[in-house]
Amino acid sequence: MAAKPSIPKGTRDFSPIEMAKRNYIFNTISDVFRLFGFEQIETPAMENLSTLMGKYGEEGDKLLFKVLNSGDFLSNTNDEELLSRNTNKLAATFCEKGLRYDLTVPFARFVVMHRNEINFPFKRYQIQPVWRADRPQKGRYREFYQCDADVVGSDSLLNEVELLQLMDEVFHRFGIRVSIKLNNRKILSGIAEIIGETQKIIDITVAIDKLDKIGLEKVNEELRLKGIPDKAITMLQPIILLKGSNREKLATLKKILKNSEIGIKGINELEYILNKIDTSPLRSGLEIDLTLARGLNYYTGAIVEVKALDVEIGSITGGGRYDNLTGVFGMPGISGVGISFGADRIFDVLNQLNLYPKDSLQTTQIMFVNFGETEEAICIKYLAQFRTAGIRAEIYPEAAKMKKQMGYADAKKINYVALVGETEIEAGKITLKNMITGEQQLLSAEDIISFINK
Amino acid sequence: MAAKPSIPKGTRDFSPIEMAKRNYIFNTISDVFRLFGFEQIETPAMENLSTLMGKYGEEGDKLLFKVLNSGDFLSNTNDEELLSRNTNKLAATFCEKGLRYDLTVPFARFVVMHRNEINFPFKRYQIQPVWRADRPQKGRYREFYQCDADVVGSDSLLNEVELLQLMDEVFHRFGIRVSIKLNNRKILSGIAEIIGETQKIIDITVAIDKLDKIGLEKVNEELRLKGIPDKAITMLQPIILLKGSNREKLATLKKILKNSEIGIKGINELEYILNKIDTSPLRSGLEIDLTLARGLNYYTGAIVEVKALDVEIGSITGGGRYDNLTGVFGMPGISGVGISFGADRIFDVLNQLNLYPKDSLQTTQIMFVNFGETEEAICIKYLAQFRTAGIRAEIYPEAAKMKKQMGYADAKKINYVALVGETEIEAGKITLKNMITGEQQLLSAEDIISFINK
Repeated sequence: MAAKPSIPKGTRDFSPIEMAKRNYIFNTISDVFRLFGFEQIETPAMENLSTLMGKYGEEGDKLLFKVLNSGDFLSNTNDEELLSRNTNKLAATFCEKGLRYDLTVPFARFVVMHRNEINFPFKRYQIQPVWRADRPQKGRYREFYQCDADVVGSDSLLNEVELLQLMDEVFHRFGIRVSIKLNNRKILSGIAEIIGETQKIIDITVAIDKLDKIGLEKVNEELRLKGIPDKAITMLQPIILLKGSNREKLATLKKILKNSEIGIKGINELEYILNKIDTSPLRSGLEIDLTLARGLNYYTGAIVEVKALDVEIGSITGGGRYDNLTGVFGMPGISGVGISFGADRIFDVLNQLNLYPKDSLQTTQIMFVNFGETEEAICIKYLAQFRTAGIRAEIYPEAAKMKKQMGYADAKKINYVALVGETEIEAGKITLKNMITGEQQLLSAEDIISFINK
Repeated sequence: MAAKPSIPKGTRDFSPIEMAKRNYIFNTISDVFRLFGFEQIETPAMENLSTLMGKYGEEGDKLLFKVLNSGDFLSNTNDEELLSRNTNKLAATFCEKGLRYDLTVPFARFVVMHRNEINFPFKRYQIQPVWRADRPQKGRYREFYQCDADVVGSDSLLNEVELLQLMDEVFHRFGIRVSIKLNNRKILSGIAEIIGETQKIIDITVAIDKLDKIGLEKVNEELRLKGIPDKAITMLQPIILLKGSNREKLATLKKILKNSEIGIKGINELEYILNKIDTSPLRSGLEIDLTLARGLNYYTGAIVEVKALDVEIGSITGGGRYDNLTGVFGMPGISGVGISFGADRIFDVLNQLNLYPKDSLQTTQIMFVNFGETEEAICIKYLAQFRTAGIRAEIYPEAAKMKKQMGYADAKKINYVALVGETEIEAGKITLKNMITGEQQLLSAEDIISFINK
């Protein structure tokens, strides 16, 4: 007796109903990506480890899944090296390839390799799984999809504007109420500059973020504990207490940051974006939020994050502007701006709010009951007719007991069942049974087709 | 200067145009799968090696990509074992997981793991990449997609009928003229039985297959060389020379195989399928072909293969009936029938015959030229209007030189370019330029929308 099979921890099987929901998510996002002129690419699951190593920090290197060289993977290692048991070093000689850890590094590699064929500015999107040897926990998997769109090779802030509109359109289509938070790395740099604490910018944003929860006194205390001098804390007060509309926030910031060239540049960028957005306003709220500090090592301009309003969950989409995508592969000067939709979290939000449209299930629309050989032959003709009309139709493959056939239709959530027995054949019609109401009607095939297709 | 990056041999990047073509292929096939009541599942890229090993023969085991255990992968290996340099054994202790080699074994594992949630008969489809450490060569990759549909948990031949109709529908939608070849493992067993050569059935089918090329004399000579006795070769003559319509072939076979119970069973199965197909005839030719011998170790009933008529290429789709999908995982008695579309070969055929529908490209439909800040603001409104109407639209992100912007639209194969300058703004209209004919027209946004959407 074989052992009961299992799958690697942190990975998942997706059942038909889960796939239907995931397809709905990915199709909605892809449709909007294309609506905005983005084009899809795909890269291989395996990349050379030389492409991946050193790109995600020391911790990231450890989380890469490495693929054993085929054939004699020991051939480049002598006995002494083997006995040294230096796992990092041995892994590097045993393995040349690793699984993709994100979509950004493979994209950078793609841009460098195909620089001569690419039509810049390159608006690409990519929806593929990535793999990380993270400790699995609730909501964290070792295999999960990323869903990225980037524009590279253009410094224009119009790209930021378009990406905000794109996010707005996606969440509008999902019916998820969101707030889009916007920040700019240059403003954070400006703040750090004027208070003379360039190294402490993350501590500062983390502390400011707690204002609503712990109050001003405790925020200042935390800043003091982090070693920010009193004078700097005093200067930070108007920033911690920053309130009002986006325009009011910008006005306040302009005063505070007037002596920081980079800070003013950040403010101007935000202002440009707000002006352009005003010409075609978003349906979601758009809020300047200085506590946004994602990817500070990476982003150089806009930073954006999307929060669901009706579900307690982290950010469900994020992105920003970066200066140097491909420098690490010897091709400097390619800047870009991108966003990444968190498909797994969006899945959770749609589930919790029960927002999947009914027809997103895409299951069979009508099932023919199988009464045996003679009736089967008639049903085969009807099936061809229904399918030609674009209706997803099937017949139960054998003349099993009615209860079994109905149970199958029920479990598959098929809304209509067609009965073609002796009476129906004589009348040249079909009895249509509504599986939800139980109602039955004798109808022609044409009537059923226009009814289901209406 | 970093080394120019590359990708692992046998893997591919897919550019936007290639992705559009591949999406057209996968979407067409999925649509038809769903039209016939199949539901999609996905399984993880990595499976436990205990699931994969021993399922593809000794050669297959070697072609599995193995994933190094994370952390201290050496911990279960002592010095002596290390120095033994037994690569198979060491690989088995260093690696617990491997990349999926096909979709069939993961599907069997899925069925066993989820047996209690599955609604049988289970009509599942799956479109995912698989990985094989094969030597790469023209048309053979180390990463490629498989595209499978199976019905498991039903012995009914109606499933075979439906799958033939499904293939017919797929190739009709592609516009690829094909011949569908049909055989039955039981007939081959019957032939082997009556001539008393059960071990030689592959040699026999290979030899028969050469009839058109080398003639009867040479076929017989080859059979002799393979050690088939003269008496058996004499008995094989009517089978080698089998000709005529499907019905005529069956009539001949009935006579020859009258003493083989299994042979007659195979003939009856084929007859049942042909009768059912006759009630709703295929658009493609359907031909009984005894030389079809794919998966003889695996298939137990119908064997099917699809050949393109207008391109010289191997079979582009294949499948058959199997008796015991899940026995190897301790769940006996699950039979099924399935088919697999060869996406890479279909891609080649569509390319060679230039059969991609124009709108399958799904690139941007209209691009707004960027004349600067003032015009940009107007264009943003138009863009929102166009996109709300479902038109894939974009604006060049900066006010670059006209030639550059037009070059971009051209390279992206965008059919229409919208010009909104001073004159147009005053008139409240847009100049629409057809990029193929060069023709220009001054039109309202509404007119352009209905023109593009028509």
